[in-house]
Amino acid sequence: MPLVRISLLKGKPPEYLRAIADGVHAALVETFAVPPDDRFQLIDQHEPGTFIYDPDYLGVHRTDDLVMVQIAASATRDTAAKQALYKAIVERLTRDPGLRPEDVMIAIIPNQREDWSFGHGLASYVKA
Amino acid sequence: MPLVRISLLKGKPPEYLRAIADGVHAALVETFAVPPDDRFQLIDQHEPGTFIYDPDYLGVHRTDDLVMVQIAASATRDTAAKQALYKAIVERLTRDPGLRPEDVMIAIIPNQREDWSFGHGLASYVKA
Amino acid sequence: MPLVRISLLKGKPPEYLRAIADGVHAALVETFAVPPDDRFQLIDQHEPGTFIYDPDYLGVHRTDDLVMVQIAASATRDTAAKQALYKAIVERLTRDPGLRPEDVMIAIIPNQREDWSFGHGLASYVKA
Repeated sequence: MPLVRISLLKGKPPEYLRAIADGVHAALVETFAVPPDDRFQLIDQHEPGTFIYDPDYLGVHRTDDLVMVQIAASATRDTAAKQALYKAIVERLTRDPGLRPEDVMIAIIPNQREDWSFGHGLASYVKA
Repeated sequence: MPLVRISLLKGKPPEYLRAIADGVHAALVETFAVPPDDRFQLIDQHEPGTFIYDPDYLGVHRTDDLVMVQIAASATRDTAAKQALYKAIVERLTRDPGLRPEDVMIAIIPNQREDWSFGHGLASYVKA
Repeated sequence: MPLVRISLLKGKPPEYLRAIADGVHAALVETFAVPPDDRFQLIDQHEPGTFIYDPDYLGVHRTDDLVMVQIAASATRDTAAKQALYKAIVERLTRDPGLRPEDVMIAIIPNQREDWSFGHGLASYVKA
């Protein structure tokens, strides 16, 4: 069910983008009980001037390789699961495509299970 | 009040995009008690590789015509209204522009009535 | 912590976009207790036909200069703070880049403090 929006500066090759998307999804499967085939992701590549970030907030030193990951997901996960998710995303993205751990920002947007329809006009997670 | 984000692969003509936007809005008016002139919609057309979806999740067979619809709206609707909304969106989009019912995914993002300002810097739905 | 998405029609110069982003951020610092260096903003410039708005909803007369501002932020602010935020955003954007007060729409998307990670894979606002 997650709807994932990945935002970064333009200029990376397709396989780099794919590695980010793959890593975020694998982390969701591993820590958020997301089925492997529950994958819906949008990638936005920004021109300079339309991707604004602070290079030092909270003492974390960010570069233009920063990736902002927004994950809309049902609010059924606890804080421990969220902590595991953040850790798993960064572990994977530092391995491939080789991001710095400082260059991964994540925001979760919560909704409810009844807020999802995956086709046929049905509330997919609501019992009939 | 809904803020609607419609995402799909690039390559469709303007009237096709408009039909999707019209159909989603008409469904919101019909089932979500949205005033006809309460319409704010953004359409994002994605390059291949930046629009990622599973072609079979929950046994629903999706194609590259898939449309992802994200609807930010006040959390004042119940599950029955959401079910009616999903059904109404798919009924309209299958008629025009002729989408397959499998190719419509919807996610609702809830907020509160005080979370909206429609001009003049006012909380439009909060009594003065 | 806010993740801000600013959407408008394509065609404005970089300094105009920057003035909008600066004004929204300054208003968040002033009214929402956001630290000055807690700044993360994405700007989307839309082609005609992909940015749809009603020119009169609630009696507010909008033009193609309309800016839609979506602010994902922790749900720790009350209605008074939100009212102050809307007012401060519009005060600043009417001054620079000179928007009409009717041409500023704002939607807040609430989440929780545990929903944010600002690097290193940590839940930045959760005590260890």
